Amino acid sequence: MIYITRRETFNAAHKLSRPDWSDDKNENVFGKCANPNWHGHNYQLFVTVKGEINPETGFLVDLKWLKEVINIQIIDKLDHKNLNLDVDFMKGQLSSTENLAIAIWKELIPHFEGTGATLHAIKIAETENNSIEYFG
Amino acid sequence: MIYITRRETFNAAHKLSRPDWSDDKNENVFGKCANPNWHGHNYQLFVTVKGEINPETGFLVDLKWLKEVINIQIIDKLDHKNLNLDVDFMKGQLSSTENLAIAIWKELIPHFEGTGATLHAIKIAETENNSIEYFG
Amino acid sequence: MIYITRRETFNAAHKLSRPDWSDDKNENVFGKCANPNWHGHNYQLFVTVKGEINPETGFLVDLKWLKEVINIQIIDKLDHKNLNLDVDFMKGQLSSTENLAIAIWKELIPHFEGTGATLHAIKIAETENNSIEYFG
Amino acid sequence: MIYITRRETFNAAHKLSRPDWSDDKNENVFGKCANPNWHGHNYQLFVTVKGEINPETGFLVDLKWLKEVINIQIIDKLDHKNLNLDVDFMKGQLSSTENLAIAIWKELIPHFEGTGATLHAIKIAETENNSIEYFG
Amino acid sequence: MIYITRRETFNAAHKLSRPDWSDDKNENVFGKCANPNWHGHNYQLFVTVKGEINPETGFLVDLKWLKEVINIQIIDKLDHKNLNLDVDFMKGQLSSTENLAIAIWKELIPHFEGTGATLHAIKIAETENNSIEYFG
Amino acid sequence: MIYITRRETFNAAHKLSRPDWSDDKNENVFGKCANPNWHGHNYQLFVTVKGEINPETGFLVDLKWLKEVINIQIIDKLDHKNLNLDVDFMKGQLSSTENLAIAIWKELIPHFEGTGATLHAIKIAETENNSIEYFG
Repeated sequence: MIYITRRETFNAAHKLSRPDWSDDKNENVFGKCANPNWHGHNYQLFVTVKGEINPETGFLVDLKWLKEVINIQIIDKLDHKNLNLDVDFMKGQLSSTENLAIAIWKELIPHFEGTGATLHAIKIAETENNSIEYFG
Repeated sequence: MIYITRRETFNAAHKLSRPDWSDDKNENVFGKCANPNWHGHNYQLFVTVKGEINPETGFLVDLKWLKEVINIQIIDKLDHKNLNLDVDFMKGQLSSTENLAIAIWKELIPHFEGTGATLHAIKIAETENNSIEYFG
Repeated sequence: MIYITRRETFNAAHKLSRPDWSDDKNENVFGKCANPNWHGHNYQLFVTVKGEINPETGFLVDLKWLKEVINIQIIDKLDHKNLNLDVDFMKGQLSSTENLAIAIWKELIPHFEGTGATLHAIKIAETENNSIEYFG
Repeated sequence: MIYITRRETFNAAHKLSRPDWSDDKNENVFGKCANPNWHGHNYQLFVTVKGEINPETGFLVDLKWLKEVINIQIIDKLDHKNLNLDVDFMKGQLSSTENLAIAIWKELIPHFEGTGATLHAIKIAETENNSIEYFG
Repeated sequence: MIYITRRETFNAAHKLSRPDWSDDKNENVFGKCANPNWHGHNYQLFVTVKGEINPETGFLVDLKWLKEVINIQIIDKLDHKNLNLDVDFMKGQLSSTENLAIAIWKELIPHFEGTGATLHAIKIAETENNSIEYFG
Repeated sequence: MIYITRRETFNAAHKLSRPDWSDDKNENVFGKCANPNWHGHNYQLFVTVKGEINPETGFLVDLKWLKEVINIQIIDKLDHKNLNLDVDFMKGQLSSTENLAIAIWKELIPHFEGTGATLHAIKIAETENNSIEYFG
């Protein structure tokens, strides 16, 4: 069993605020992350896949394929977007990094069926100090 | 003459788009940076100051003071904000990193008068691949 | 189950040397880390907490709270300090990164009781080449 | 149980190509990594060892010893070398990062016998975006 | 006058050795960099351009254009290549980072004519410890 | 004219405090950097040298030689040392990064005489946020 991790990046806007709460309550709970006019981040996404090495190629998975799946399914939908307004798979959810990690997991998992590789972890670094990891 | 550089960070939303241009023209010129719903970055700001060492302290400037000036004058106004909507000193300007660097220079320069230290450079790294530097 | 990691930094002095050993033996075992006049590091501390997402906030824990706990319980006691002389929870122990990681774990663990979140890992990077991880 | 990770680096050339395949097939499967004239990387190797702390020293293992083992057994054989042509323990294998991680594991494992420490993980970062991890 | 720096990366093989010198002399002068079977690096290229801001766009230059010029003229010719064998503009030269920086300068300079922007610096980081800068 | 920069690192203890000042005054001026029991840093030293390329080797200077000079003259005297107590060339000076940069410049400058290369800059990064640069 071997593990491969691919890093991709995306730059997005978001805010943490519930429409069913007052501005005061949102600011009280979410602090400056609740700024009504949004803020944003350079997110780093780390996708880890595990499985056996294909003896013919020496690869767990073809990195070009892994990169393409992550870009088409995730990065193209998040990069230079608003996580609250522009992203189908985040609709109706708070755009916390925790929720985003789980949503990305759910988007990616079907693409590994029948490939011999298994999705192992989604890690998102929101800043150099904060990151989230999800293992399904 | 010695140079000291202080790094501070801020996370902000912005978009590149001119209200006097059509959506099509904005997208044609500014690409995905023109997304009407904004995107954002973890910006790194590097402020470089030059001058002579104070022999009494071994310092060019007191870093606590430098940090405080940068935070009060710049970071508090940019962090978790929208560069187009929330920032007084960016009003009426395109929120390009180039314009932002010059605007920060203009905000900071009066605070060095009479300190014996001179503002030397403003550098902003917008992503790990793109940065802007301005020397006045 | 989701995992959140918060990074904080502290700059401290220490030395590795046992008072019950001769200088020669200390130098023989601990090498240049035994320098009687101390040396120091920019330590990076990574605290990882795990648990379920609070559906009301989308958070595992409130990062402001996590940051405050780490700073009050740990960073304020270590930053710009001497790990051998100034730190209550390191008294009587060799200031190896291994011992420091376990001591930080013990200091932090009571603060997660009743929070719904569980302390998962303490990681300390002493240099860009050396790091220690402890899982309790 | 505590974990220590030591990072070492090496700069090496390699290519991904099977002598029993045509140039076309190699390029089709391995893309630009199949360039007949080689390419290369600044590899980062992370060796993680686990075990109990020695109460006499506060150490899991003596880092000077760990560093020496990694350098003599691995780095000296890989640094400024060609992974396909110059490395005994990679002979007859495709020089994928996956195969390299497993080969390094096999080279290092005998050196931990009788030390009280156990090899836990070999991680190799080939670029800032791609890394492989192996746990035996 | 404002400065913009774009980072691009390439992974390449090379060796330092003169065909008119003996193997012994090459090894004596160039050390392990003379390994006949090559070695390689993850090179980072930083291209700095200077000029006036276009008031219509807030840009010094269109980053998409700058990125394209660097990729077509330089990166596509260096990435996953052998600097000694595969690169037209390095033919007949020792593949030192110094020579490479000057060669890249010469390749790029014609592309800035008539653009209003001026090439200011080529910086190449060969490892995390070594870098070269050239200003024409 | 070309520029080469070599990075070396050292881990040292220090404090900022004047023996001719009271503890209160030292703490008032130098803040937590005045802690009587010392603190420390992982310093990064960047030495930049400029000159013409030697056409025989393609080098500005032999990096092995440059590395050796920096290590023998500077790093061996600073690494795992106390900047206030253990370092001849810092005796009688406040161990500010500013003073340290100038002292390193003075130590290194004689070693470039007659080499064809000129010392251009000494840069010291004390933390990820603070750095000093000196050009003689």
